[in-house]
Amino acid sequence: MPGALDLGLPARVPAPVPGDLPSRITIWEVGARDGLQNESAVVPVEVKLEFLDRLADAGLTTLEATSFVHPKWVPQLADAAELLAGLKKREGVRYPVLVPNERGLDRALAAGVEHIAIFGSATETFAGKNLNRTLDEQFAMFEPVVTRARAEGLDVRGYVSMCFGDPWEGPVAADQVVSVGKRLLDMGCSQLSLGDTIGVATTGQVDALLDGFIAAGTSLDALAVHFHDTYGQALANTVAALRRGVSTVDSSAGGLGGCPYAESATGNLATEDLVWALNGLGIETGADLGKLADTSAWMAQRLGRPSPSRVVQALRG
Amino acid sequence: MPGALDLGLPARVPAPVPGDLPSRITIWEVGARDGLQNESAVVPVEVKLEFLDRLADAGLTTLEATSFVHPKWVPQLADAAELLAGLKKREGVRYPVLVPNERGLDRALAAGVEHIAIFGSATETFAGKNLNRTLDEQFAMFEPVVTRARAEGLDVRGYVSMCFGDPWEGPVAADQVVSVGKRLLDMGCSQLSLGDTIGVATTGQVDALLDGFIAAGTSLDALAVHFHDTYGQALANTVAALRRGVSTVDSSAGGLGGCPYAESATGNLATEDLVWALNGLGIETGADLGKLADTSAWMAQRLGRPSPSRVVQALRG
Repeated sequence: MPGALDLGLPARVPAPVPGDLPSRITIWEVGARDGLQNESAVVPVEVKLEFLDRLADAGLTTLEATSFVHPKWVPQLADAAELLAGLKKREGVRYPVLVPNERGLDRALAAGVEHIAIFGSATETFAGKNLNRTLDEQFAMFEPVVTRARAEGLDVRGYVSMCFGDPWEGPVAADQVVSVGKRLLDMGCSQLSLGDTIGVATTGQVDALLDGFIAAGTSLDALAVHFHDTYGQALANTVAALRRGVSTVDSSAGGLGGCPYAESATGNLATEDLVWALNGLGIETGADLGKLADTSAWMAQRLGRPSPSRVVQALRG
Repeated sequence: MPGALDLGLPARVPAPVPGDLPSRITIWEVGARDGLQNESAVVPVEVKLEFLDRLADAGLTTLEATSFVHPKWVPQLADAAELLAGLKKREGVRYPVLVPNERGLDRALAAGVEHIAIFGSATETFAGKNLNRTLDEQFAMFEPVVTRARAEGLDVRGYVSMCFGDPWEGPVAADQVVSVGKRLLDMGCSQLSLGDTIGVATTGQVDALLDGFIAAGTSLDALAVHFHDTYGQALANTVAALRRGVSTVDSSAGGLGGCPYAESATGNLATEDLVWALNGLGIETGADLGKLADTSAWMAQRLGRPSPSRVVQALRG
């Protein structure tokens, strides 16, 4: 359709940023890790490297690159060391990696990583299912990882999964998530990523959880949000979080990804759909929407199925 | 996934409705008209009748049933009179129909319709493309329709299309839309449906347009919103409108629909994705999400392709 691409771009809609929204957002791009980790067919390392390079070329500055989880659990990311060795690092771009435990940290340090993330659970049941640990044991496992990483000069992000609903426990109380999050911050994490791992949250829950952290004295700079679009709520929830003052948002190019514990789960919030929303609001991201959509269309071809991103479908479908 | 369906339902999440949101929303279901009108393969009238009956059974109370536009333009809805004659009307359910002009009104009156809608444009260019008229000529065409309909005791809704962006004109100024909307209200329309016909709007534009109407003295009860999900913004935009006090929302079961002027446009906001959001917020709609998803899965089978609704995909995919 003629002209449609331009309609949401700041060049043509120089709207002032509404007062209750941040003027600039950091997009934490998780496509190469969270997006690809559940793909059953292994993507060649050269394709992953090109993917990351194209995402950087599209202006994204935080690219979660891979995970040092044991290859037995996530065969897709068994090439983590090879990928990091082949990475064309760019000035001003961070390439954090997920690290599950001390063995993973050893591998990350050997690969010269500067920024790691750990992946914790907000609920007892998911800690049991995902880590085979209680919540207390989860913290005991993370503590030496975070302490050593910090001593080595690394920055550490703490993912908190199942922040809103859990397939076994149902709705998760905000107090519970705040308690888990505070322990990770106290341990030395510089930022929490509050994850709706199964995509069930709605906007009122987002407000309530962020209010809980604010009441507990957590700085908004220490909070990021991470929504999956399983029930179509990811962007609405993200906008709710932005209105509460959050300024780091996780998303996945082309909406890649899904949760292995939810059979029919669609992927993460699509980076392109997020960028469309932020461009319209006049919020800076540094991202080039056309290059992002090109990259996701290219990756969709490699994966052999269309991108679930509405923007990618509309612009490149 | 066990338990996933229940997570967003009020029975398990009895969240209080946040203070800035309405406690009850009217869903204006457009699936049978806006949803089906662009389907190239004609859906048999019995299937449409079953669709409407199932939507009523799922608790929806406003079902836009069909359109009396000339069959040459929308062959899919050429069966309007037959459909209305076969309708099993339910107590407490409204069945409005679209009426493009006086000839359409004649047919609607002959069919015993009690509630009509007219479809106007916010922009000169789309008035020209869609109606072959200028904006002034558009009002001259609608005036006798609305006047006669009101004299016959009918309620009249006024659609305003291209409220945020137009494929030819680009972004549309809020003042322009307010001016068009006020003329339709002054003419005798009881409600405006503010449409993002090509799905390009973002939340700041929604705020700005509603603020424009509020500043012009329009009652919020006279405003509904109508978003297409072409760029993934429909639900976020709808939630923004709810926060401004709008309490009538257009949506389409299963996300059926699209805009004939946007080749790759996905459909309307999916009713199921909307209901998931409203259930989570504790906002009443009267809708039964399971029955809606069943209905949309059934219709998707008849149309031969999966529903674009994330909720339908997750629950019935």
